[in-house]
Amino acid sequence: MTAAVKQRFHAAWDSLLPIGLDVSTGGYRRYAWTPADLACRGWFEEQAHARDLSVERDAAGNLVAWWDGPEHDRRGAVLTGSHLDSVPDGGPFDGPLGVVSGLCAVDLLREREINPKRALAVAVFTDEEGARFGLACIGSRLLSGMLELPDAYALRDSAGITMRDAMLAADVGLHAAETIHDISQFSAFVELHVEQGRGLADRNSPIALGTSVWPHGRWRYAFRGEANHAGTTRLVDRHDPMLPFAATAIAARRIAQDSGGLATFGRVSVEPNATNGVPSTVNAWLDARAPDARTLQAVVDAIESEAASAAAVHDVSVDITSESYTPEVRFDSALRGRMAGAIAGDGLSIPELSTGAGHDAGILAAAIPTGMLFVRNRTGVSHSPMESADLADCLDGVSALATVLEELLCR
Amino acid sequence: MTAAVKQRFHAAWDSLLPIGLDVSTGGYRRYAWTPADLACRGWFEEQAHARDLSVERDAAGNLVAWWDGPEHDRRGAVLTGSHLDSVPDGGPFDGPLGVVSGLCAVDLLREREINPKRALAVAVFTDEEGARFGLACIGSRLLSGMLELPDAYALRDSAGITMRDAMLAADVGLHAAETIHDISQFSAFVELHVEQGRGLADRNSPIALGTSVWPHGRWRYAFRGEANHAGTTRLVDRHDPMLPFAATAIAARRIAQDSGGLATFGRVSVEPNATNGVPSTVNAWLDARAPDARTLQAVVDAIESEAASAAAVHDVSVDITSESYTPEVRFDSALRGRMAGAIAGDGLSIPELSTGAGHDAGILAAAIPTGMLFVRNRTGVSHSPMESADLADCLDGVSALATVLEELLCR
Repeated sequence: MTAAVKQRFHAAWDSLLPIGLDVSTGGYRRYAWTPADLACRGWFEEQAHARDLSVERDAAGNLVAWWDGPEHDRRGAVLTGSHLDSVPDGGPFDGPLGVVSGLCAVDLLREREINPKRALAVAVFTDEEGARFGLACIGSRLLSGMLELPDAYALRDSAGITMRDAMLAADVGLHAAETIHDISQFSAFVELHVEQGRGLADRNSPIALGTSVWPHGRWRYAFRGEANHAGTTRLVDRHDPMLPFAATAIAARRIAQDSGGLATFGRVSVEPNATNGVPSTVNAWLDARAPDARTLQAVVDAIESEAASAAAVHDVSVDITSESYTPEVRFDSALRGRMAGAIAGDGLSIPELSTGAGHDAGILAAAIPTGMLFVRNRTGVSHSPMESADLADCLDGVSALATVLEELLCR
Repeated sequence: MTAAVKQRFHAAWDSLLPIGLDVSTGGYRRYAWTPADLACRGWFEEQAHARDLSVERDAAGNLVAWWDGPEHDRRGAVLTGSHLDSVPDGGPFDGPLGVVSGLCAVDLLREREINPKRALAVAVFTDEEGARFGLACIGSRLLSGMLELPDAYALRDSAGITMRDAMLAADVGLHAAETIHDISQFSAFVELHVEQGRGLADRNSPIALGTSVWPHGRWRYAFRGEANHAGTTRLVDRHDPMLPFAATAIAARRIAQDSGGLATFGRVSVEPNATNGVPSTVNAWLDARAPDARTLQAVVDAIESEAASAAAVHDVSVDITSESYTPEVRFDSALRGRMAGAIAGDGLSIPELSTGAGHDAGILAAAIPTGMLFVRNRTGVSHSPMESADLADCLDGVSALATVLEELLCR
C-alpha cells in the first residue's frame, strides 16, 4: 500500500470523525434521518464522487456507490460496505470502518491495477443499529426481502414519527426512488467490521474471518406485585417486584457463566418509580446469546425457571414475552474458503471468530453468499465512546478487504 | 351520633369522591394547583360555607375554615385537618379523610351543644404529598416556619414550572394573601389520618393514637460501571452496575428484616437503558426507616457496606448521597394523655401506633403541641387505589376526633 492510499484513508476517516459527535459524552449520536445521519450520507456521496463512483439510493435510503465493471454489466457484482448510523453514544468505528475500508479498497485495487471481471458496489445500509425505530438492520432487511417497505415506513420512533415521515422531513426525494436495490444482481457480500469483543485483543493478528453470528433474542420480563407505601407497609405484607427481578438478574449472570453464553439485563422500567413506594411493576429486558441454539434455549429456560421461583417467594407474578429471536447464521463456507485462501496468499494467517452481535451481514447471509472480516479492537469495548482500534490495524483491514475483493472480482 | 350527622358525612364524602379520579387506574391524581386540586379546594369552601364557617387562604394556599369562639377571639384556637392532594394514583382516604372528619366533627360538636371556650380551625394544607414539586408537606412547612415563601415559590415541577407560576396560572389571587397563617395563634393541632399499614387491620379497634413518626431518609446509590455491547462483551470483561445494584436490593431487604426497620428500592434509573447494552450506570434510591435513629443508622450503614462489597466484585464504583433525612418526631405526651383520657371517657379503648409515614402533623409537631388519630385500613395498602377503610370505622373516627376536640375546646 503506497503512502497515497494511506493518505486517502486518513483523509476520509478524519473528515467523517466530527459528524454527530457529542462533545459532552465523546460518543456518536448518528440516528437514522437526523441531521447527523444526513451529514454522514452527504460525506459518503462526496467520497464516492471523488473516486468517480456513481451513487444510487433506493426507497429504503440504502446507498450504493458503483465501480462499474466491463461494459457496465452489473450482473454478479460484488457488494461490500456497512452502516454509518450509531447507537446512543457509540464509538467511531462500529459501521463507518466498513464503509471507509470499502472506499479505500477501491483506491488500493486501482493502485494494484487489477482487471475486474465484474462490478463492485460499496454500500451504506440504512439504520443498522435500530436506535431510532426499534428495529435493527432496517436497510438490509428490506434489501434481503425479509421486511416489506410499507411495514418499514410505518415504524415509529419514540416521538411517534413514522420512518416515512422522517424520510420526507429529511427531503431525500422519496418520489425519485420507489424501489429497493435488486439483491439478485450481487454474487457475494463481504462486510468489514470492527470487532466488538476481545477475541483479537490478545492475539498476534489484526484481523479475523467471521464464521457465524450466534443465535440471540430478547425477552421482556414483567414482574407484577402491589404498589404500596414504603414507609408503612410491613415487609411481610409486601409484594415487591424489585426483589425477584434482582434475584433473576443475579441468576442470569451465573447461568450464562456456567453455560458459556451471554445474558444481560440492560434495560429496566419501574412503575410508579417513586422513591417512597414499593413498585407495582418492574419490567426488565433480557438479552441472551449463545454459540448454538440448544445452549441458548437451556440458558433462557434456566433463567425463566429462576424468575418463576423468585417471583413465587414474594407472591409476585412474572410474565415473560419473547420480543425477538434471531437464529444462528453460519456464513457461506465456500466464500469463507476463498477469503481465507486469498488472505493466506498475502502471507497473513487469519484466525476465525464467531460473534454475538447482529450485523447487516447476518441479514444478507439469508439472501446471498456472505462473509465478514473483523478488525482488532484493543479495548474490546463496543457501543461506547471507549471503543478503539489502531489505525495501523485498520489499514491491514483495508488491505485484507482489497485482497478478498480482488479474488471475487477477478477470478 | 344522629342519622343527620352521618348523612352529612356521607354527603360530604360522596361529593368529593369523583374529583381527580382517573377512571383507567381507579386512582386519584390530585396534584397541587392542577384543575383537580382546584376543584378539591372549591369543594372545601362549599362544605365550609354550608356549615357557616368562614374560609381564609394564606400565601401558601393553606385553607382554614373558622368556627369562631366567644367574642371572635382566635388566641389559643384548636387546629385540625389534613390535605386533599394525592400521590400519583393514590387512594381516596389519604388526606381527605382528615378534612371530611374535621368538618363533620363540627357538625357533631354542634349536635352535642358544646360550649367552646376557644375557636376551632379546620385546615387543608397545600401539597402534602410533594407529587408535583418534589418536596413533601410544603404548606405545613411554610406554616411552621421550616420553609420560607421565596424558596417555596421557586420550587419547580418536572415541566420546569415554578410553584408561584402554577399558583398564578390557577388564578388563586396571590395578591390578596401575602402572608402565611399565624401558627402562634393555635394551642394544638390534631390530625386524623387513615392508617397506611396493617397495625389496626387485625385488632378489635377502629382507631389508634399516634405516638411518633419514625426517623426516615432517602439515599441515592449511583453504581457506575462501563457501557458495553451485550452481544460481544465476555462476562469476565464486564463492569455491569446492574449486578451490584441487584445484590444491594436483596441485601437491603434482609438487613431491614433482621433489624425491625424498613428498606425499599422503589425507584431506579438506568443509563443508557438499552436492551442490547451492558449499562454504564444504575441509579437507585433507597428509602429507609426504623423505629429509632440508632436502628436506622445501623440499617443504612449495613446496606452501604453490602453495596460497596457487591460493587467491588464487579469492579464497579458506587457513590451514595443522602438526599433527605427526617429525625424521629415524638408527639406531645401531655396532649396524647388528654386525647387518650377523653376517648377512654367515651368507653373506647385505644391502641397506640408509631408510623413510618411523613405527615403534616410530623412537621407541625416542631411548632405546636400535636397529636394524631389513625383510622383502620382493612387492606393496609396505601398510596394505591387499593387503600381501603370501612365507612363505619370512619364514623368512629369522626366521633373520636370530636371527643378530642371537645376536650381541647372546652377544658
